[in-house]
Amino acid sequence: MSMYYESKRRSVIKTISWRFFATLDTTLIVFILTGKLLLAVSVSGIEIVTKIALYFFHERAWNKINFGRRTIQPFVLWFTGLPGAGKSTLAARTTEYLRKKGLQVQQLDGDKIRAIFPDTGFTREERDRHIQRVGYLASMLEQNNVIVIAALISPYEATRRAVRGLCRNFVEVYVDTPLTVCEERDPKHLYRRARAGEIDHFTGIDDPYEIPRDPEFRINTENKSVEESFQDIKKFLSKYTDT
Amino acid sequence: MSMYYESKRRSVIKTISWRFFATLDTTLIVFILTGKLLLAVSVSGIEIVTKIALYFFHERAWNKINFGRRTIQPFVLWFTGLPGAGKSTLAARTTEYLRKKGLQVQQLDGDKIRAIFPDTGFTREERDRHIQRVGYLASMLEQNNVIVIAALISPYEATRRAVRGLCRNFVEVYVDTPLTVCEERDPKHLYRRARAGEIDHFTGIDDPYEIPRDPEFRINTENKSVEESFQDIKKFLSKYTDT
Repeated sequence: MSMYYESKRRSVIKTISWRFFATLDTTLIVFILTGKLLLAVSVSGIEIVTKIALYFFHERAWNKINFGRRTIQPFVLWFTGLPGAGKSTLAARTTEYLRKKGLQVQQLDGDKIRAIFPDTGFTREERDRHIQRVGYLASMLEQNNVIVIAALISPYEATRRAVRGLCRNFVEVYVDTPLTVCEERDPKHLYRRARAGEIDHFTGIDDPYEIPRDPEFRINTENKSVEESFQDIKKFLSKYTDT
Repeated sequence: MSMYYESKRRSVIKTISWRFFATLDTTLIVFILTGKLLLAVSVSGIEIVTKIALYFFHERAWNKINFGRRTIQPFVLWFTGLPGAGKSTLAARTTEYLRKKGLQVQQLDGDKIRAIFPDTGFTREERDRHIQRVGYLASMLEQNNVIVIAALISPYEATRRAVRGLCRNFVEVYVDTPLTVCEERDPKHLYRRARAGEIDHFTGIDDPYEIPRDPEFRINTENKSVEESFQDIKKFLSKYTDT
């Protein structure tokens, strides 16, 4: 990706070039229809002046018309829920959707960021540090006009509230999939390993998940396809992406 | 900050509105000059068709003209150097300069990020973790079209190289101010405290600073005002901001 600009000089010269050819067009039409050169030149002389004035007032008038204008405030969409609830899947689908709309979007996945900071464990202290790191990253991106879609178990209410405090426009989505369903899905076989005692501090098994008290959105993915769940999110999101 | 968009429908209706008034203008000019309504209507009928075609070909032709076009690839400008070398001051000045150019810029200051992660100390391991965190943050911002201006002592060559590996367009600026000058300036009285034994692991005193082997730019701030040093950076930066 890169930033593309056109210089002021390019715009000035392109404007002059357009006016030249547009006026030449008018002159030719009048001359061909009437055979009178003086008339053709008079029309185009008046046209140059009036079109410039007209363009200016047309722009000013449209400045007062709000039809079709949209302002999107960047936000941090934070998916929280048990392992296997469907956070990353829904986050990826949402990211894809918003990118297609032409928005600048960054997905942040708890697991992927842990892979970059491998010394991060799963004690409360280490989880908090991890989430604080992701939260700070999210807030920085948000400040720079990037929409953030984060997917993290983020099991503690207090930590989620701390991240909310860092962000300007924090939107908490509680992926409320029942433990039994998550354990049945078990996409990465982590529940099986946790039950076998191979993993400690596993949220839902031997580590608590504090249910969000007041999330902006709550979604139960049980008996729903990914696409159905995403449609619910899309509908909810419209108030953040349409203005 | 927010993202501003205009919908396609707004553009379509605004285009029709412009064509309507522009053609009305031509019709009026011809009618007033000649008094012939049929001629005026004929001119404007031909004008509508020819102007739309002309506009299209004008745009296509300008697409092939590169005059005044600029593409800026985002980059991470990484100031490294001893405490008191002038990194943060020059970073702030550079950030201000690039923002005024209308670019999306984020300044990352080692000290400020340490304040958010207060458990970060100054052992080699803790420094590395800190710089890795800032480097990752920088790379994420860069990926999202944000220019990053970072100011960190970042004393180890290996760690700087690791951050370089994370970023797409890493520009290392070695603020090469001699230790004696830094110690003389001592803006935060840290050298004084380090000499008094109040601070451990202080770079330049009891912790090493590994001189960058191959930085993109090297600047000695000795005997130079901030503005003079900044002018050197500005000149160097032109190859990244002008294309």
